[in-house]
Amino acid sequence: MHASPDPIEAVSQRLGRFVEAQRAQWADGGPETAVFVDAAARTLAGGKRLRARFCVTGWRAVAEAEGPDVDVPVEVLDAAAALEVFHAAALVHDDIIDNSDTRRGQPAAHRGLEAAHLAARWVGDPAAFGRSAAVLLGDLLVAWSDDLLEQGLRTAVHAASAREVYALMRREVTIGQFLDIAEEAAFATAPDDEHAERALRVASLKSARYSIQHPLLLGAALAGADAGQRAALAAFGHPLGLAFQLRDDVLGVFGDSAVTGKPSGDDLREGKRTLLIAYARERLDTAARRALDAVIGDPGLDAGQISALQQTIIDTGALDRVEAAISRYATDADAALRDARLAPPAVDALRALADAAIARSA
Amino acid sequence: MHASPDPIEAVSQRLGRFVEAQRAQWADGGPETAVFVDAAARTLAGGKRLRARFCVTGWRAVAEAEGPDVDVPVEVLDAAAALEVFHAAALVHDDIIDNSDTRRGQPAAHRGLEAAHLAARWVGDPAAFGRSAAVLLGDLLVAWSDDLLEQGLRTAVHAASAREVYALMRREVTIGQFLDIAEEAAFATAPDDEHAERALRVASLKSARYSIQHPLLLGAALAGADAGQRAALAAFGHPLGLAFQLRDDVLGVFGDSAVTGKPSGDDLREGKRTLLIAYARERLDTAARRALDAVIGDPGLDAGQISALQQTIIDTGALDRVEAAISRYATDADAALRDARLAPPAVDALRALADAAIARSA
Repeated sequence: MHASPDPIEAVSQRLGRFVEAQRAQWADGGPETAVFVDAAARTLAGGKRLRARFCVTGWRAVAEAEGPDVDVPVEVLDAAAALEVFHAAALVHDDIIDNSDTRRGQPAAHRGLEAAHLAARWVGDPAAFGRSAAVLLGDLLVAWSDDLLEQGLRTAVHAASAREVYALMRREVTIGQFLDIAEEAAFATAPDDEHAERALRVASLKSARYSIQHPLLLGAALAGADAGQRAALAAFGHPLGLAFQLRDDVLGVFGDSAVTGKPSGDDLREGKRTLLIAYARERLDTAARRALDAVIGDPGLDAGQISALQQTIIDTGALDRVEAAISRYATDADAALRDARLAPPAVDALRALADAAIARSA
Repeated sequence: MHASPDPIEAVSQRLGRFVEAQRAQWADGGPETAVFVDAAARTLAGGKRLRARFCVTGWRAVAEAEGPDVDVPVEVLDAAAALEVFHAAALVHDDIIDNSDTRRGQPAAHRGLEAAHLAARWVGDPAAFGRSAAVLLGDLLVAWSDDLLEQGLRTAVHAASAREVYALMRREVTIGQFLDIAEEAAFATAPDDEHAERALRVASLKSARYSIQHPLLLGAALAGADAGQRAALAAFGHPLGLAFQLRDDVLGVFGDSAVTGKPSGDDLREGKRTLLIAYARERLDTAARRALDAVIGDPGLDAGQISALQQTIIDTGALDRVEAAISRYATDADAALRDARLAPPAVDALRALADAAIARSA
């Protein structure tokens, strides 16, 4: 069984069929079950399908190295779909943790479940119900992601190595997410000159390895990549992933809310301890540093305060340093593709994905 | 590789080794990572290891059907350990949802992480940090449970059918947990004469199938059970699991807090819509029913109010009816073992587990 010409469209179709199968399985579960399955389905709509793209392209880079285009096999589409479902789960839990109201321009899952509670005229506190139900919704999506992965792996030759990549990805991203929220609380106990390194460690685990390196290597594993191919893809994926996260950090402070779909300066209100903040702090004196720490993480920051903080980040040179780091990482990523034994059309596709990931405005 | 004589002790040792390997892997992760991994390790201590017991005994019932005792293979111990880790994850998320402060006589995970925040003198709201970190802790434990399962399945002959049981278990319990919290909110919109049936549906998904039937069938799958053996174990496990949950419901209202480790009447404060409540409501007039609905779920209920509610549950005959249902389910479970092609010593062990599950006081 093979994919339609556009593999990302095929991944979306695969997700759609999976959701329909789940709906059918729970068809006699009554209206409450339908609320839950509908909420799960909604989390899978939209998004850039970034992880699916890297997974499919990682597979192509290896599978097509020996010859011209071959159709993407079903196990790769299933693995790519599993990555998207796992990511949806992570976002559901993330939005509870960050108290975010919106996601991809729609209500965040816990807010959607809160609305379902209100619409059904159920009793009790709708907001508390929404948060509790969303914890379980994330759990359901994680189960679904495993189901998708395993459906594909049933007939896959390289199932064991694919499972290993997936499992490592899950452990690392969860620890990375924990370190991310821990850093918002623990930064004050760490020496000032270690903040940048700590921010990069979080970016590596929860973003560079999770969003790009592991998806690439999952696809590559399914194609039976050898050690050299894996090393080349990792050497491309990791710096690209760091650049991707640093771009995200810049957008989290300076992004246009009309384009990002999130309020401008959201990372400042959330108190994220990004490389941008670490660099800004390095150039401030103790008093200014304390003043910065005191306002970052205040959910009530107004437009004037956000604008003053943006100016501080510019004036300390932090924005320029982060932009320079993005360029450096992008160059490193690009260099890793040179001379690698990977299929040239897939390498071109990886370069295009890299450009889009780094230059994006949302 | 084979197990030490007591398989449940061997499961605990397996868990211990797994945790040590995780600690070693993250040894250079700094103090924040250690807080997280320590919190995960703590959730795996103690407990009745009920699911591990049913898994191992399900395996024995099939594997020993053809001959005398054989050692429990490592894949069964790994699967049993995976069930315990998955259950720890479910409890971590459950305790956030139910706002429970204690678990197995220790602080609930989110309270433990709150305490770690305080002890480390981190900044921000310790309680909010504890809840957010515990959402991620549950996610980490789910990843660990898959890792344990897959480690065992690498060399298992019946890996595919074991995975299928495990995957179904995960989907069902998550939907069951959702229906459980939804019922606390949605009961008022359901016809009064459907409440008992709805309570039993939740008990089936989140308890009977999850805690007993699926663990049994996971063990049986690893032993290569045939359709008749699977049917016999399901016909035993499901009613036993219902009886187990109904005993839990009775303890949740009438249990001695010194024995259960939870405040007496906890289910009433939480607003759980159990069969006990459904039966009580059936025998009340409209006014009394409304009065009952108005107090159940009030976290501030005092000892006098709890005692009055207990009396209502007794006076309406609800307690007697639930006790009768427990006996009936126990009889059904026992009957399913008669004439089944299962190993007699394992059948004796299943009967002993059943007695303990139904007669327990904690």
